[in-house]
Amino acid sequence: MDGFPDLPEFPPGEVWLAGAGPGDPRLLTVLALHAVTVADDIVHDALVDPRVLRLARKDAVLLPAGKRGGKPSPKQDEINALLIDRARAGRRVLRLKGGDPFVFGRGWDEVTALSEAQLRFRIIPGLTAGLAGAALAGIPATSRDTNHAVVLAAGHRAEGQSTADWEALGRLGQPLILYMPMTQLEEIVAALQRGGLAAETPATLIQSATVDGERIVESRLDALAADAQHHRLGSPCIAVIGEIAALRKEVFASMVGWS
Amino acid sequence: MDGFPDLPEFPPGEVWLAGAGPGDPRLLTVLALHAVTVADDIVHDALVDPRVLRLARKDAVLLPAGKRGGKPSPKQDEINALLIDRARAGRRVLRLKGGDPFVFGRGWDEVTALSEAQLRFRIIPGLTAGLAGAALAGIPATSRDTNHAVVLAAGHRAEGQSTADWEALGRLGQPLILYMPMTQLEEIVAALQRGGLAAETPATLIQSATVDGERIVESRLDALAADAQHHRLGSPCIAVIGEIAALRKEVFASMVGWS
Repeated sequence: MDGFPDLPEFPPGEVWLAGAGPGDPRLLTVLALHAVTVADDIVHDALVDPRVLRLARKDAVLLPAGKRGGKPSPKQDEINALLIDRARAGRRVLRLKGGDPFVFGRGWDEVTALSEAQLRFRIIPGLTAGLAGAALAGIPATSRDTNHAVVLAAGHRAEGQSTADWEALGRLGQPLILYMPMTQLEEIVAALQRGGLAAETPATLIQSATVDGERIVESRLDALAADAQHHRLGSPCIAVIGEIAALRKEVFASMVGWS
Repeated sequence: MDGFPDLPEFPPGEVWLAGAGPGDPRLLTVLALHAVTVADDIVHDALVDPRVLRLARKDAVLLPAGKRGGKPSPKQDEINALLIDRARAGRRVLRLKGGDPFVFGRGWDEVTALSEAQLRFRIIPGLTAGLAGAALAGIPATSRDTNHAVVLAAGHRAEGQSTADWEALGRLGQPLILYMPMTQLEEIVAALQRGGLAAETPATLIQSATVDGERIVESRLDALAADAQHHRLGSPCIAVIGEIAALRKEVFASMVGWS
């Protein structure tokens, strides 16, 4: 395109760690789209939309590295080793993650492994599902009348890992955007309420933001877990908890979607 | 591109509210780039990079709506009225903001005004400078060993507006990413420390992320305001406060930039 900056060469032996955004390929950044179309190997999560993977070169090697069906997902060490092996073999390796690689995406584990192996890497940030999925549902992360801060928190507790201090977050009284909260939603809601967050606080669940099967359920804090079950919501899902979650009603009649 | 979804028509009389990301045009989403190249009118903030605006049609009308030089910036009501007038005149109006329109961007004021005027609008999320600027400086918003949550907070206090509860955020002990904190940095740091955040907490300032004049200053909480002054940092700036701010040292030797 006239006046558009040159797109960079992808040197063999480098690893580019990119976020694919919430799903819709039109929400890829120009750099991420470029990377998808030039990479030799694409090591991708299950959350990366098939429409994005179809943009790869015909002779690119697609290497799934996420939970798929009933199969056990590769361990983080195995993914790190795969990236290192491919890069050492002189491949142009794209590590493609749903959302943003540095927002609850284990991207940091991978770049530290690459760095220890003395391999060169680059970062391509992506739209994180918590913010972009909410925005596309008509929910702003911030609005002048409701909040000066917003908390992004991991709702999923990985094996052997600790979790956020939900009572403290309840006390804070600022809106929360939870990533993958379904497995411990009841626990989280109870702790937020113990911290002082009001039972009637607006709360909205967004499943599969911007992709096939997107579903939005509007609720309130004390009904959130029951509503999730009633509507049979599953992963991937984000929860928005706070006054911002109720704002979409005000503009929804005028908002046009991208489908 | 083969297999890429169709890009949408821009119907006359609609307003598309898009985020331009942190600055580098290659970090625009495909949808935002499309919008820039087809819009009739582009109402843009001062933070939108000139390289992005140069991609507009030769006959597009560029309407600045941000602080520029010594001139007073238009009031929000005037910006709302401009969007409404242009849309009612049947123009294809792009409202282009730095970063993401719904993260401390007053985007919500604008879509509520459009909705009240019964005008149709669409949202194109953008990479928010706090997350993308940090990532491109080698700072992850989250890493498994440091945090399960991250707080985005407005550092700038608009006239007549309240501000975040910094003491409560200090008590929370989770990493903070502050947008535009320079005008009240000393106050914020003092309140975070009163809340209990340790004086030696790592803290990094990033001025002009991804654009000409980018500068990164690594410091610690109790030295942050003095270091900002010493290095003469100005706006636009983000501050990352927390263990994550120190991680970049671990990988920086292997990280390749995009310049």
